[in-house]
Amino acid sequence: MRNLTLLTDFYQLTMMYGYFKNRKNRRFVFDLFYRKNPFGNGFAIFTGLEQVIEYIQNLKFTEEDLAYIQLQGFQDAEFIEYLRNFKFKGNLHAVPEGTAVFPSEPLIRVEANEIEAQLIETALLTIINHQTLIATKASRIREAAGDDIVMEFGLRRAQGPDAGLYGSRAAFIGGCNSTSNVLAGKEFGIPVKGTMAHSWVMSFDTELEAFRTYAKLYPDNCVLLVDTYDTEKSGIPNAIKVFQEMMNAGIIEQDYYYDDYRYPEHKPLPVFGIRLDSGDLAYLSKIAREMLVEAGFPHSVISVSNDLDENIIISLKQQGARVKIWGVGTKLITADGCPSLGGVYKLAAEIVDNKLIPKIKISENFEKITNPGIKQVYRIFDKKGMISADLITLEDEKFDSSEVLFLRDELHPWKRIKLQPGEYQIKPLLEPIFENGILVYQKPTINEIKLNAKANLKTLYDGYKRLINPSKMKVDLSDKLYDLKKDLLFQNKFN
Amino acid sequence: MRNLTLLTDFYQLTMMYGYFKNRKNRRFVFDLFYRKNPFGNGFAIFTGLEQVIEYIQNLKFTEEDLAYIQLQGFQDAEFIEYLRNFKFKGNLHAVPEGTAVFPSEPLIRVEANEIEAQLIETALLTIINHQTLIATKASRIREAAGDDIVMEFGLRRAQGPDAGLYGSRAAFIGGCNSTSNVLAGKEFGIPVKGTMAHSWVMSFDTELEAFRTYAKLYPDNCVLLVDTYDTEKSGIPNAIKVFQEMMNAGIIEQDYYYDDYRYPEHKPLPVFGIRLDSGDLAYLSKIAREMLVEAGFPHSVISVSNDLDENIIISLKQQGARVKIWGVGTKLITADGCPSLGGVYKLAAEIVDNKLIPKIKISENFEKITNPGIKQVYRIFDKKGMISADLITLEDEKFDSSEVLFLRDELHPWKRIKLQPGEYQIKPLLEPIFENGILVYQKPTINEIKLNAKANLKTLYDGYKRLINPSKMKVDLSDKLYDLKKDLLFQNKFN
Repeated sequence: MRNLTLLTDFYQLTMMYGYFKNRKNRRFVFDLFYRKNPFGNGFAIFTGLEQVIEYIQNLKFTEEDLAYIQLQGFQDAEFIEYLRNFKFKGNLHAVPEGTAVFPSEPLIRVEANEIEAQLIETALLTIINHQTLIATKASRIREAAGDDIVMEFGLRRAQGPDAGLYGSRAAFIGGCNSTSNVLAGKEFGIPVKGTMAHSWVMSFDTELEAFRTYAKLYPDNCVLLVDTYDTEKSGIPNAIKVFQEMMNAGIIEQDYYYDDYRYPEHKPLPVFGIRLDSGDLAYLSKIAREMLVEAGFPHSVISVSNDLDENIIISLKQQGARVKIWGVGTKLITADGCPSLGGVYKLAAEIVDNKLIPKIKISENFEKITNPGIKQVYRIFDKKGMISADLITLEDEKFDSSEVLFLRDELHPWKRIKLQPGEYQIKPLLEPIFENGILVYQKPTINEIKLNAKANLKTLYDGYKRLINPSKMKVDLSDKLYDLKKDLLFQNKFN
Repeated sequence: MRNLTLLTDFYQLTMMYGYFKNRKNRRFVFDLFYRKNPFGNGFAIFTGLEQVIEYIQNLKFTEEDLAYIQLQGFQDAEFIEYLRNFKFKGNLHAVPEGTAVFPSEPLIRVEANEIEAQLIETALLTIINHQTLIATKASRIREAAGDDIVMEFGLRRAQGPDAGLYGSRAAFIGGCNSTSNVLAGKEFGIPVKGTMAHSWVMSFDTELEAFRTYAKLYPDNCVLLVDTYDTEKSGIPNAIKVFQEMMNAGIIEQDYYYDDYRYPEHKPLPVFGIRLDSGDLAYLSKIAREMLVEAGFPHSVISVSNDLDENIIISLKQQGARVKIWGVGTKLITADGCPSLGGVYKLAAEIVDNKLIPKIKISENFEKITNPGIKQVYRIFDKKGMISADLITLEDEKFDSSEVLFLRDELHPWKRIKLQPGEYQIKPLLEPIFENGILVYQKPTINEIKLNAKANLKTLYDGYKRLINPSKMKVDLSDKLYDLKKDLLFQNKFN
């Protein structure tokens, strides 16, 4: 992990110096949250915590950094000395990666010395906004692809190396089966996949020779790219010729057949088939399927690519495309349709001399008014174990599922739902990650995170997972938080 | 610069091994180009070459990398040994950074041993696609902002740390005056700017106290954020109160006045003013201007931010907004509206035993047919020094502006333009960067690159710079290239 200490906005430095010169013993509580689900989705998949942890653990101003900061006008020797010894010594709570989350819920809560809390704002937002966005896009693509294989290969169109690297991670967590990105494979243990480009085929005298050579090299995973010259007249027939040769050589067996053949689960058997990268993918996949079945290869795979996303996959399926593997690149890795998540980091409270002062940001725009105080988020499950609502509360409120629980709609406070004991389960989402700067969290593996995302999606009723116009999850405020917010709003109205 | 050797697609490894096992002495010629201008723009600003150079110079498979590659099934000891000693020993030509470029022109030309040429495809595309996209977006924002100041501060919404870092670089080249990103400032020498966030204002008992404290700390650059509570009733009046105090203290002088006051050119004078970050920016900037002028501060600056891009800036200006500084974040740094540039890397020729074999990629789609052979791009200027066309030629063609020049439209070959000697100037765009793996290029500074971009834009007639429906630049083929392409198309038609 690189040292990203200077990956911050200049105004953080101007404010840090301002805090340094004015008061040193105040603590800030910040909430990181977003206001609107991306892509019109019903939720987001929280992702990026592991990189936030690494970022915080690696915070250190080098002498080079300090020289640069001095050049920018911060000449105060005490301040520079403070930065030289800078460490994050605060507390940080977060929702576990892979959790399905909703607008306005605190996803990360930072409580630290005001200078420390301010510095880390930018990098936390960069990391979480990016990965959460891509994981959410991937989960939409997974929803569209159903049980098919989804391969991510967007690296070449990513917004820089990190967008490819961390985008692959987020895409895997959100639902992809593999990546083309070798560095992401090595760094995160994501399965890497890939076969050949058009340049391979073009570099041989004939397409047939290109396919034969490839089949000889990679008999166990022989997916041939068939659209370099003419898919129907040349590519598929040449592929079939090579599969027949492989069958004659005993590499492919004829006697296994399952129509719902799946790529990774049957690893011991060789994978062979074709990739379509241009043209009418619905038409060509159906034609290819017919030709392959007719030639005795119903167990071959058809994979397709070419600017795919959830919408195109649904449209191709609706037209009866016969595809088992979807290769998804550009539109996933750049979050096409909504290339940013608007996560923000807002002051929720100050602690001065051990006294808590809740803070609120006023706005003409109702959604931009923040929730004050040190908060927790509780998830409420119904009797079937499905999410029925989330409840934002003050940290010190306690809930017990053997008691009656009231849920109140913030915008329509007369709408209260009463949950009887036994009718619901409740669990807090924010977990301690750093305490006094020390990591107290057992980081899950990427596969555990991926499973968590999958398990989270299983607790969402279908309506919340609809790709267009999903149902809106209830995110309510506890009575105590609601009252605090109301009081502060009235107090603050004219400052 | 990090070692990004594994930042490649897995299929590059499968092909590299294939080439390694089959033939070792063949060279490939690849062209990197794109097919469509982003954002409906009339051109793109080529950016990213410096990072391509660093990437190539840092190519090295570490032992860790090699262990990972072996785990992926590449057990051949000779191949691993080959990778252990891998270096890029080929030739690379490129257009200088900051050049205005057009679809289908080779922007980078790689000629190297087939394995080397294949490995670097992905990273070259990632780097160039990203930075060229952002520089182009920034040039559109610059076009909308005219002579106003444009500050880039998108880091928190960037698609990961690199997208923020290299995006800042590209945005500066494309036309921004500064960045908020401290790391980008340090790495690239871009001016960094930034004042305060809402949390600064909220952390004081009153807005006035927050402003006063800030003014005391930063008397030379005092831009106050006025929308935390109520812009008109609280923010602007409090700012004016502080400016009056600064004036009484002799920090701000009253006796200079220029309506077209510009931020950086007059550095010795203190900069002071306000930032609007929400609400109706056109209305509020006009009101603020009136209030500030009335209070005797016509020389204060008004800066605005809030999801701005070229379209919103034009709309605000059209409504008479009084703004001198535009803060542009999310929509610039994520290239909103077109979050990817579709750059590709296509085989143009092979060299076997010193024999050149031009290669072409066929497609049903005319634009996807590639231009074969080793090529150069010439820029044709008219008598006024403005670009009249670009001409893609074979490398060995020579042009002399004392001779007649014919330009031919590829799609309408009967449309030929005859340029008489003295009517035009011609200059090649592709310059040698690496020769036999050795850097032969004098890297320009970022300010030289920015000036090159500015100079390039000055050679474009307004029609090409129109933000909506711009004129289409002629990119023609030389007769020799046209004939070669035609011949190969007929030869290859049925492979």
